[in-house]
Amino acid sequence: MTLNTGKFLRINLSSGKIVEESVPEKIARDFVGGRGYGIKYLYDELAPNVDPLGGDNKLIMLNGALAGSSAQAVSRWMVCTKSPLTGAFARSICGADFGAWLKFAGYDFIIIEGKAEKHAYIHMTKDSCQILDASELWGKDTRETQEWLKEHHGSNSRTACIGPAGERLVKYAGIFSDRRTAGRCGTGTVMGSKNLKAITVTADRTVRLHDPEAFKKLAKEQVELIRESRAFQFHKEWGTTCTQDVTNKLGIYPVRNFRYGQQVGYEKITGAEYRKLRTGGIGCYSCPAHCGKSHKAVDGPYAGATTEGLEYESIWAFTGTIDSTNIEASILADHLCDDFGMDTISTGNTIGFAYELYEKGILSKEDTDGLDLSYGNHATMIALIKKIALREGIGNILAEGTMRAATIIGKGAEAYAIHVKGLELPAYDPRGTKAMGYNYATASIGASHCYGYARQDVFGAIQPRMTDRFAEEENADIVVYNQNGTAMTEIGVVCTFAGGWDWVPSHFGKMLAAARGIDELADNDYLQQVGERIYTLERLFNIREGLGRKQDTLPQRMLTEPLHTREAPGEGQIVRNQDKFLDRYYQIRGWTKEGVPSSEKLEELGINI
Amino acid sequence: MTLNTGKFLRINLSSGKIVEESVPEKIARDFVGGRGYGIKYLYDELAPNVDPLGGDNKLIMLNGALAGSSAQAVSRWMVCTKSPLTGAFARSICGADFGAWLKFAGYDFIIIEGKAEKHAYIHMTKDSCQILDASELWGKDTRETQEWLKEHHGSNSRTACIGPAGERLVKYAGIFSDRRTAGRCGTGTVMGSKNLKAITVTADRTVRLHDPEAFKKLAKEQVELIRESRAFQFHKEWGTTCTQDVTNKLGIYPVRNFRYGQQVGYEKITGAEYRKLRTGGIGCYSCPAHCGKSHKAVDGPYAGATTEGLEYESIWAFTGTIDSTNIEASILADHLCDDFGMDTISTGNTIGFAYELYEKGILSKEDTDGLDLSYGNHATMIALIKKIALREGIGNILAEGTMRAATIIGKGAEAYAIHVKGLELPAYDPRGTKAMGYNYATASIGASHCYGYARQDVFGAIQPRMTDRFAEEENADIVVYNQNGTAMTEIGVVCTFAGGWDWVPSHFGKMLAAARGIDELADNDYLQQVGERIYTLERLFNIREGLGRKQDTLPQRMLTEPLHTREAPGEGQIVRNQDKFLDRYYQIRGWTKEGVPSSEKLEELGINI
Repeated sequence: MTLNTGKFLRINLSSGKIVEESVPEKIARDFVGGRGYGIKYLYDELAPNVDPLGGDNKLIMLNGALAGSSAQAVSRWMVCTKSPLTGAFARSICGADFGAWLKFAGYDFIIIEGKAEKHAYIHMTKDSCQILDASELWGKDTRETQEWLKEHHGSNSRTACIGPAGERLVKYAGIFSDRRTAGRCGTGTVMGSKNLKAITVTADRTVRLHDPEAFKKLAKEQVELIRESRAFQFHKEWGTTCTQDVTNKLGIYPVRNFRYGQQVGYEKITGAEYRKLRTGGIGCYSCPAHCGKSHKAVDGPYAGATTEGLEYESIWAFTGTIDSTNIEASILADHLCDDFGMDTISTGNTIGFAYELYEKGILSKEDTDGLDLSYGNHATMIALIKKIALREGIGNILAEGTMRAATIIGKGAEAYAIHVKGLELPAYDPRGTKAMGYNYATASIGASHCYGYARQDVFGAIQPRMTDRFAEEENADIVVYNQNGTAMTEIGVVCTFAGGWDWVPSHFGKMLAAARGIDELADNDYLQQVGERIYTLERLFNIREGLGRKQDTLPQRMLTEPLHTREAPGEGQIVRNQDKFLDRYYQIRGWTKEGVPSSEKLEELGINI
Repeated sequence: MTLNTGKFLRINLSSGKIVEESVPEKIARDFVGGRGYGIKYLYDELAPNVDPLGGDNKLIMLNGALAGSSAQAVSRWMVCTKSPLTGAFARSICGADFGAWLKFAGYDFIIIEGKAEKHAYIHMTKDSCQILDASELWGKDTRETQEWLKEHHGSNSRTACIGPAGERLVKYAGIFSDRRTAGRCGTGTVMGSKNLKAITVTADRTVRLHDPEAFKKLAKEQVELIRESRAFQFHKEWGTTCTQDVTNKLGIYPVRNFRYGQQVGYEKITGAEYRKLRTGGIGCYSCPAHCGKSHKAVDGPYAGATTEGLEYESIWAFTGTIDSTNIEASILADHLCDDFGMDTISTGNTIGFAYELYEKGILSKEDTDGLDLSYGNHATMIALIKKIALREGIGNILAEGTMRAATIIGKGAEAYAIHVKGLELPAYDPRGTKAMGYNYATASIGASHCYGYARQDVFGAIQPRMTDRFAEEENADIVVYNQNGTAMTEIGVVCTFAGGWDWVPSHFGKMLAAARGIDELADNDYLQQVGERIYTLERLFNIREGLGRKQDTLPQRMLTEPLHTREAPGEGQIVRNQDKFLDRYYQIRGWTKEGVPSSEKLEELGINI
């Protein structure tokens, strides 16, 4: 029986040439699938130093080795490319059904090359692939685009697409499927640069596995393991909508552009508060967690606004960044980013950066089209999201991300740009979870929490050991463990929310072996090495692009400003000059240096003793 | 027409001798009344270095120059003595009706000397004064005592008394009238040391004024001025039950024995939360503010507990000190302190001190009679209040106050004793309002917020000028201004809650002149100098007792530990060792010092480039 190494389509938008290829056995053994295939093909095929937004860059969209199967929570998919934000390797993961559908069409991935002359979209089935005219789609938001494509290609279709922000090359545009996003690193920007609006897959739900019988049994067991997982149970209940409770408590919830680690009034944005506005839970393909909680604003100026999702990172992006505790504004902001097609983390972080520049006087109302960027002003945040997406006024600068915007603005703005390698920091302050922070500093894609999430620091995970979250080089092994382990699961593509860390150790390898027909995959050590191999090849990619130790750095603020856990002007105060005070106080009172009323003063007051 | 300088009774408990005297004109001109008379008579009559709890100490109870008149909010009264807590001058102010009743009986003050052989109480009318047997009263709480005395002397009587804590010489016992307290400095301890349980005054509501017609007109105008005062309106609405909202916001709400300036979860103890449990408002004699808000616990283990009052300081004393946010516990604790007759500030502060010693391991369960003094444990706080009042077990040590308890306990406990001159600090962290802090350091009686309340720092008062609340010697003039101004109003005795700072400048002097018949009092500069004279004489008293510059100091914690505005272990963190981290991280990964994967590692992973 031949191995199931996976097939892919190479789609050249410049030439219109479309070729189907199989993954060679050697690559399948070494890289297995998902992120492994992503870096392997990108490394091998991309010439060094190409323009990320030029025709030479490639956009690889991949599902994992288990996608579309009867296993649960393994059908996430990802985009690998060279990032226009960082100039480094990019991988950005997305949920929903698109990854499973790509597999149903018979493919583990597609490599999109070149650049379409006119606005185009791709339509794929099991038997066909067409590059079609997108002139009717161009300008539509992500929801409209998907509706249009479902109308034209049937309900058995799934789409990944960009919105107006991707069309305008906003540097942190994402690729959307349903309301899920491959948000980070500007994957949507690369897609926009190729004049590609969408990829739609029409397919029936069949998937090829090497050993379907063995797989079926393993998948059944996996369902039980997931059900028992506390992480699964937690995310089923809450998704990530209450992580702000944890991070505020730990003092690592970044407020006012990473000046503070706790938000004054955060009791207004707790998980319980969001829950009051919850309207439902939405799951990705074959996942019972339904962790994507949808919300609807009921009261206030944003009443009626709805959003599917609003994960922790997005909650933060539209509250802590600008020091607003208006939940409704965060719902609308998330909705707008989804419609326009932008990464919420980079959007929120960049807006928080602009608010600080405004506070510091580096930006004035003349620069902001008259907008008032005072902390807490959520109406301005809403306005800025639209301006960024459409590159209007100040939005045209902020659309470049903090690193480039700081260069454009000058006047010392770069001190306030909170990014690593150009990728904006997410919602965990590095100073309060150093293992997370150093993961940001060293992650192949820049400041990504998902790249090596420090579960030990944040949630007290005890694998591989407990951590002191303020320790630095002492936790270097933890950072490596988290990064390699994550790379390993992303060959899956396993979702950790559905208890991934609980079922992976006993089951993942066996399932991979049954799916691919490569027995070594059942060996945990082998798999771990695959993770390390992926990580190492990503590093080689970045080195080839000129990145090295110098770029493995956190923003200056993290290295020079102590973390303050709450805004309070008294923080850190001490009584320093008691002697000077007493000197002056006694002098004013007409007392001696020893504090004894002088005879002159006594005479003045008519006190005779 | 003779001047109305005031009369007083000299009551010697040792000899039983009772003498009525008039205040000489010179003293009335120089010291006017209230606190002025208090320090003048104490300074003149007390030999240096007497034992505060011996028969040589004197207890002076005084109303103000305007007490019992038709003017509003001027009938507070005070106790002056030598403090057993500080060994310094003591003045402690109380509300309710007792001060007015003392005036109705014809007196500006009484001087209690000596020590009764048996438990005694004093009963006064306009025409008589008797030292009576208190054997039936001894052991009763303050409420029972007052009820008993009203029963025996009629409803036209008012009482000032001590509770079981005063009987047992708890160092911070207070003197109570209704549920109001002359709480600070151990005035009740001095009274207890004299075997004196209570003073009851039976009298009709008449008062002698020098120029009743002129006074009547001024009093009418004063009513209007008070009604317009925003301070009055605010205190009428809230009393001080929401000051914690302000101080938490400023980061000066002392938490965990002055380690933090904000309380985690303080949203559970806001003014709005207390308001939910409010049952009414209680006023002192002739005051429309009714600022004493009473509360009742509805739910939880303390359901049914009630208290009249619970001022800001008491709210803090039973929440922040031990890091509890249980409102109901604070209500019960306040009730108990009122019943037992103890100062809530020193009680709460001392308990918070004990909790920190427990945390530090200086006290263990063996020392605490098995009680668990972990932060947040409000049940232990309730138990400790009883133990302190009755001097049981660990309570017998804590009854000595933080300074003496630290000496008894040893093991470095004194580093955690937060007092000035022996008087425990109230609920404003000195590091976040330096003018308040330096007032603590220099106030004649030790750490009293009322002695020179830094309204400029806390509420943004603009008289005499705005302040930077972190400035130190730059605000020495403000401290002097607040202290002298307070001394001046306390000849009144003016209550500042009822808009005192609003009507005093235009009216106080004129009213004093009409009441006393001393025209100079209408001159504001003259009055200001009276305040300074009082303050200076208090200083001379303290110097005579051996206190000086060395004792004008804040606790070490304020001088050495930066204020942290909220408990969060990440506070102040910074990323320090990025280079060391990268060295170790690269080493673990098998990368060179420059972060490039080594050829050995590549070989190991089977990566050929």
